[in-house]
Amino acid sequence: MDIRELARHLGLSIGTVSRALNGRKDVSPATRKRVIDAAKTHGYIPNQSGRTLRSGRTGTIGFMLTLEHDSAMHGDPFFMALLEGVQNGLSEHDLDLAVLLARKGEDGLTFLRRHVSRGTVDGWVLSGTQHEDARIAFLLDRAIPFVALGRTATARDYAWIDLDFEGLVAESMRLLTDAGHRRIGLVAPPATINNSQIVVQAYRAALERAGIAFAPALVHHGETDESDGEATASELMALPERPTALLLMGETAPVGAYRALRRMGLEPGRDVAVIGLRDNPACRALSPDLTCFSLDLDDLGLALARGMVAMLPGQYDATKPLVQQLWTMKLRLRQSHLAPPRVG
Amino acid sequence: MDIRELARHLGLSIGTVSRALNGRKDVSPATRKRVIDAAKTHGYIPNQSGRTLRSGRTGTIGFMLTLEHDSAMHGDPFFMALLEGVQNGLSEHDLDLAVLLARKGEDGLTFLRRHVSRGTVDGWVLSGTQHEDARIAFLLDRAIPFVALGRTATARDYAWIDLDFEGLVAESMRLLTDAGHRRIGLVAPPATINNSQIVVQAYRAALERAGIAFAPALVHHGETDESDGEATASELMALPERPTALLLMGETAPVGAYRALRRMGLEPGRDVAVIGLRDNPACRALSPDLTCFSLDLDDLGLALARGMVAMLPGQYDATKPLVQQLWTMKLRLRQSHLAPPRVG
Repeated sequence: MDIRELARHLGLSIGTVSRALNGRKDVSPATRKRVIDAAKTHGYIPNQSGRTLRSGRTGTIGFMLTLEHDSAMHGDPFFMALLEGVQNGLSEHDLDLAVLLARKGEDGLTFLRRHVSRGTVDGWVLSGTQHEDARIAFLLDRAIPFVALGRTATARDYAWIDLDFEGLVAESMRLLTDAGHRRIGLVAPPATINNSQIVVQAYRAALERAGIAFAPALVHHGETDESDGEATASELMALPERPTALLLMGETAPVGAYRALRRMGLEPGRDVAVIGLRDNPACRALSPDLTCFSLDLDDLGLALARGMVAMLPGQYDATKPLVQQLWTMKLRLRQSHLAPPRVG
Repeated sequence: MDIRELARHLGLSIGTVSRALNGRKDVSPATRKRVIDAAKTHGYIPNQSGRTLRSGRTGTIGFMLTLEHDSAMHGDPFFMALLEGVQNGLSEHDLDLAVLLARKGEDGLTFLRRHVSRGTVDGWVLSGTQHEDARIAFLLDRAIPFVALGRTATARDYAWIDLDFEGLVAESMRLLTDAGHRRIGLVAPPATINNSQIVVQAYRAALERAGIAFAPALVHHGETDESDGEATASELMALPERPTALLLMGETAPVGAYRALRRMGLEPGRDVAVIGLRDNPACRALSPDLTCFSLDLDDLGLALARGMVAMLPGQYDATKPLVQQLWTMKLRLRQSHLAPPRVG
């Protein structure tokens, strides 16, 4: 039943029904009750597009996904599990989740402008944050609620949750340098991604702590998926002084790296130490079992949803600090890091 | 610049500007040209929520994802790659893609009703089709454009694209029965999913062709992810007369199955033949390499997008047949199916 039918059924004007449903004061309590009861009885659902115009509320949160950046960092398995967590968190507040995908090659700001001007959603979860990320200032300037999965270079204050890349690189490097490795190859995400810079900084700090000189040839920036893991491992192992250990900061990079190593007659975990990012199904399928980090994506998704809801009008409390959380990942010690630092 | 500012700038009423932008006949051609030129110059973007009310067009297509069903069938890696293809296809027509996630435990019809009443999107791509799927009739009855990824039991005519499960099960079974296997364990998706029924029918037909009696104990319905693959392989291999081959119709089920087999001291491909569904990164990480099927998800996504666009008002041509395509997957012969039919 639409609003016209509901109004006809009640013998009221559409305007009165609309004002009653929107809780306006110029409708008597008795009429309001009659309208709301009838709306319930007849299963009337307000047209959300209409409600958007009146109250700016769509009941939906947008998760902005930029396949190019996000796949580069995390690949596929990360996001589906994360989205399930976000969805669960939003459901608690009767909010829907719409994953909105930036078009291929499309600038993030163009995408966001389009959806903001359309009023597609009430608030945003941003992912794949870049070091210089114009989306942050755009949303802050317009007071549009959002939470970012990832930090950026901006000095401005905003809500974010990020993985503790500093911590996981430091822990991986300590494991390798304590075992005597001095030539450690690093596969980091594309340089524009904020976490790529954090990863390289943490890598360099760890080298310095261990008294090892930084060799730029050992650091590769780029996509961190399976095929890039394969290409990069090949390149790094072809260096005149090849690394004895590889640190691979992409979800499926280790799958390609194992393949590349074996093609060169090298066995991961015996001839070359390998540490990966996260124990997704692809990494769990590897043998020898991959030393990497584990992460509860349901919990992370839930935290993002709650961080987002805390920014919404009616929930936002300016006296409380913004959500700004580094999310620790837990080392999952297996066999792949065990290769001794033999120089090939 | 919003419509109010544009009207003020032009010295026209908001109504005139709106009518000009909507191409209405009651505005003079000269005024229309002035308004459109000014809108271009000042970067005016119409408020989409307003346009929705007027023309029912949001410029966005919804991809309905039911994490429970879709993960059961395909797991994570399938959808991210598919969505990239759908997105590319929609971009050709300047349409956006919104992935809308059904809430946990939420009925698909409740979800769809809510979004249709809100006018969230112009059309739908449905996935995870059930054998009895009320969404199909709901959308057909309301003449809402959609295309389904998957078939259903309904006799009504609608646009769909589905993977050729008949073909891939027949090809897998021929491979195994030709090699002499007579006890073949099957892990099929949950029974409510339409493809689950297709898989079991094709499995039974293949047994009949090979003169092998059907043993219900060898068929397992359920989730087809990694942990279910592990549990199911354990159960099947614990049968008094255990299977000599496993056919696993889930994306990451083989990862768990390999683990379960090894825990029992059985080597996949040597002691037990294994055939999987699709060569995603997790399956490519397995060793011995998994015999399974390959599929170009970019192409499939593109086909879904084009099938969807063909249903939209202005594109729909009632004289043309609806898109109804079985999508063939190509056998990727590796080592895991090579175990001989030794009875343990």
